[in-house]
Amino acid sequence: LIDVKPSIPRVTVERLPIYLQCLDEVPSAQWISSENLAAMAGVNPAQVRKDLSYLGSYGVRGVGYDVDHLRRQIELQLGSGRVAIIGAGNLGAALAKYHGFSERGFTISGLFDDDPDKVGTYIDDRIVEPMERLESALAERAVEIAIIATPADGAQEVAERVAAAGVTSILNFAPVILQVPPHIDVRRVDLSTELQILSFYIKRR
Amino acid sequence: LIDVKPSIPRVTVERLPIYLQCLDEVPSAQWISSENLAAMAGVNPAQVRKDLSYLGSYGVRGVGYDVDHLRRQIELQLGSGRVAIIGAGNLGAALAKYHGFSERGFTISGLFDDDPDKVGTYIDDRIVEPMERLESALAERAVEIAIIATPADGAQEVAERVAAAGVTSILNFAPVILQVPPHIDVRRVDLSTELQILSFYIKRR
Repeated sequence: LIDVKPSIPRVTVERLPIYLQCLDEVPSAQWISSENLAAMAGVNPAQVRKDLSYLGSYGVRGVGYDVDHLRRQIELQLGSGRVAIIGAGNLGAALAKYHGFSERGFTISGLFDDDPDKVGTYIDDRIVEPMERLESALAERAVEIAIIATPADGAQEVAERVAAAGVTSILNFAPVILQVPPHIDVRRVDLSTELQILSFYIKRR
Repeated sequence: LIDVKPSIPRVTVERLPIYLQCLDEVPSAQWISSENLAAMAGVNPAQVRKDLSYLGSYGVRGVGYDVDHLRRQIELQLGSGRVAIIGAGNLGAALAKYHGFSERGFTISGLFDDDPDKVGTYIDDRIVEPMERLESALAERAVEIAIIATPADGAQEVAERVAAAGVTSILNFAPVILQVPPHIDVRRVDLSTELQILSFYIKRR
């Protein structure tokens, strides 16, 4: 017998962290209806039921979902990982200090910068390492996700270096579109982009 | 005659800032083909042509799009706006120092915190104002977008206060799902969420 899992659609994957965050606000040892979870997450109940069915969670008619069980099932899907931050400027430093990563099971395994004035200094209890150490550190520490928090100029080169070192997932904060091989998964957080999208809708009110 | 504009689909709106960023990397006074723009943006050429057609840009067969004209058209759609940052901790301070906002036409019109040790101090040349001033400052300065960079605990209350003060767009960095009236547009940037989505795909390689 082979354990055949249906593939989970990308839109569902993107909603799973939101459900998890909603469940964090519900006391343990409780049940939650798809209607309540939907209201918290800002989606419709049918969508919640469909999304959770991909995890094999169908809920109990008239009762809903066991909160603790559902939380564990989602955490199992989303997992955790080792992360390196490249760029120890304002944003990189803020990310290095951010406690939300460890709360979600992610470990920051390195913080790198090419500025000699920053290398060797500490941000909280984390030392800033030189870029010369990047490839060897990524490999030794089995880093899975690289967070690029450099200025726009250096980001493409950093992406190529982490990809060459075997990292397959990049979270890019630099305001550039990275050109990477197709097997590299890039997600992009661009703060101006978010503001521009909001602004588009303001102008149309 | 009435100027009837077709409504632009949300997925297209979300790609417009990406096209704009790609165009920034192309020299002025040039033409760009939909194929080249598509390759830079990481989408397919048919999608680019369809997206740009919503702006009334159809390109010239065999030549492509006038880069400067296209950039102006997208900027006209995306516009700009006045922004306030609530929360002057690590992330709020990093956002206040971020130059990408002004490069995209956004003005930071206020930085607020409830910590008496922070109020009155400067982050770059911007003073941290007390939360008691929030509502009056938002109104006086006609702030359009509130960036919430508080811890999870205070975010919901801040959202209610900015909404009551007439701000209709919120960019939320706090790791909570905000409950707001339907006329408020919320976009959410959650760093752990981004890592979790990447991690999901790492586990399935």
